[in-house]
Amino acid sequence: MIASNSRFQRLRLCAIALLCWVSFAGPVLAQTDPLPSWNDGTAKKAIVSFVKETTTQGSPKFVPVPERIATFDNDGTLWSEQPIPVQLYFALDRVKALSPQHPEWKDKEPFASILKGDVKTALAGGDRAILELLMATHAGMTTVEFERIVTDWIATAKHPKTGKRFVDMTYQPMLEVLAYLRANGFKTYIVSGGGIEFMRPWTEKAYGIPPEQVIGSSIKTKFELRDGKPVLTRLPELNFIDDKDGKPVGINQHIGRRPVMAFGNSNGDQQMLEYTQGGGGARFMLLVLHDDAAREFAYGPAKGLPDVALGAFKQDLYDQSMKQGWTVVSMKNDWKQVFAIKKWSTTD
Amino acid sequence: MIASNSRFQRLRLCAIALLCWVSFAGPVLAQTDPLPSWNDGTAKKAIVSFVKETTTQGSPKFVPVPERIATFDNDGTLWSEQPIPVQLYFALDRVKALSPQHPEWKDKEPFASILKGDVKTALAGGDRAILELLMATHAGMTTVEFERIVTDWIATAKHPKTGKRFVDMTYQPMLEVLAYLRANGFKTYIVSGGGIEFMRPWTEKAYGIPPEQVIGSSIKTKFELRDGKPVLTRLPELNFIDDKDGKPVGINQHIGRRPVMAFGNSNGDQQMLEYTQGGGGARFMLLVLHDDAAREFAYGPAKGLPDVALGAFKQDLYDQSMKQGWTVVSMKNDWKQVFAIKKWSTTD
Repeated sequence: MIASNSRFQRLRLCAIALLCWVSFAGPVLAQTDPLPSWNDGTAKKAIVSFVKETTTQGSPKFVPVPERIATFDNDGTLWSEQPIPVQLYFALDRVKALSPQHPEWKDKEPFASILKGDVKTALAGGDRAILELLMATHAGMTTVEFERIVTDWIATAKHPKTGKRFVDMTYQPMLEVLAYLRANGFKTYIVSGGGIEFMRPWTEKAYGIPPEQVIGSSIKTKFELRDGKPVLTRLPELNFIDDKDGKPVGINQHIGRRPVMAFGNSNGDQQMLEYTQGGGGARFMLLVLHDDAAREFAYGPAKGLPDVALGAFKQDLYDQSMKQGWTVVSMKNDWKQVFAIKKWSTTD
Repeated sequence: MIASNSRFQRLRLCAIALLCWVSFAGPVLAQTDPLPSWNDGTAKKAIVSFVKETTTQGSPKFVPVPERIATFDNDGTLWSEQPIPVQLYFALDRVKALSPQHPEWKDKEPFASILKGDVKTALAGGDRAILELLMATHAGMTTVEFERIVTDWIATAKHPKTGKRFVDMTYQPMLEVLAYLRANGFKTYIVSGGGIEFMRPWTEKAYGIPPEQVIGSSIKTKFELRDGKPVLTRLPELNFIDDKDGKPVGINQHIGRRPVMAFGNSNGDQQMLEYTQGGGGARFMLLVLHDDAAREFAYGPAKGLPDVALGAFKQDLYDQSMKQGWTVVSMKNDWKQVFAIKKWSTTD
């Protein structure tokens, strides 16, 4: 039985190979631009040169396939994060959905303000308010139940300003970089301050990144038998914060290798880029600067752009980037297209 | 430049494909037994049947490739763990190596007994003694330095009874299962109570399992600049214990999918197998019973075998296996060969 199965697989491989041989004969694919949504400029050139140098056998910068690890921040690097990160919109919607079961929220912050529609006052409580909000909306259910809640929400939830679904606000140029790197043997990872379980239900369809290549912040879970069924229950207790100096820690914990390429957009990514560069040899570090108010949002405060509470790219990080030779992408000048061309679909 | 690189890769693929086509024409490979070190019996049959059912298109138990996750305990499942786990031998050797820098150890347990060669007394302090031993030998250096220490040690360290190197005491039948599963689209993971950073330096060469597919217990690390260089320093503080009900938690944290197959050998693996089975549908659970005193070690205490301090397979777990339909492997009866046939080499 094994023999016939193995035989079948070999036959399939050979069929694919013959197709490959036929297409190799044609010149079309060989001339395709892997990054069509990028304007020709130093950023695009830097990406393409680096990939060529690290994947060409015999090149002094050649990197073997198993070591081709590329890590990407999510919020602000792969999709929009303004005026507040998508996961916060999710939490606000969950407060509204759960409020009938929590009459006490009417008199308790940050819930009272959220239920009145006053997000600004709700978030004025800072980290403590956000933490309370996250625990009330992200814990208490099993991991399977939470996955279902996120999956249902993300399929329709829209950005209040653009009217687009959040999943349609991924960045086309970055989707092209992800695909280009994978085509060249790189393993692409998300390394985000956002919740690991909030991202995993949709990253495969949105970015081609499977759950096991998503690293993020997390709350604790507990294994238990519920009605005789083994489940993991989500506890209202922080487990790990995958931001700033947590990012190198998360990368080491999950991957156990130092990245060769790292992509971010804010001061929360600084240590990930430093850690990547610290490996020596061929390394590539990139930061996206949001300077395109017309097509997306403009914020820094680097280069005099408006300051923001979450996702700031400060001037000192910009100066460090210039000094260290990191690539800084101007969304305005480097990107022909901002948002994903193809609409996100659960049936993809 | 990209075009020529892409062209080169296509050419390589086609060359591989032509070789494949030639070998397909021959009947030899198609008849190869994927598990030659397993005696024909219920265990071998169960493994082969399950793989066939879950990988045959159109089968009611078909599992898509991305969901083909197989998790393996390490100590006692993939290599020997008696009379004490290999990582403890490593810790004992480190105490001896570090003792000149720690004159105070002469009067302090568990170090004093270790330095006198009395391991039994040293470990009589139980979990507390082991924890102290691990922290003294596994923390204080960078992750890169620790990797080097492990790599150097594992290349030569030998088992006191068999005289074999520990890396040559991996189990040939399990190496065959790992290779067989990967050939059928399964992603193989280690999920061990052992230290994640102790395993990663050698699992790729020993098992074909890369660092990012190793899950284990860990201590905390801290990102910092040391002499201006960004490093992760290992702290003497527990981070996560990947044993018993920690195994499903670790699996969810690292993989984000429920395994389809799970392999273990002790009560420390019970919850991993329960969690795997709890996914419903096609699932495969297996436990190795060490009942071969002549070729390896015999311990349970299931089925009246001698009891052990670490790695016990208790009677209640055996009874649960029978009740739940888990496969229990008798090393004595199911395995033709116990230890790896090919010697481990750093140059493989």
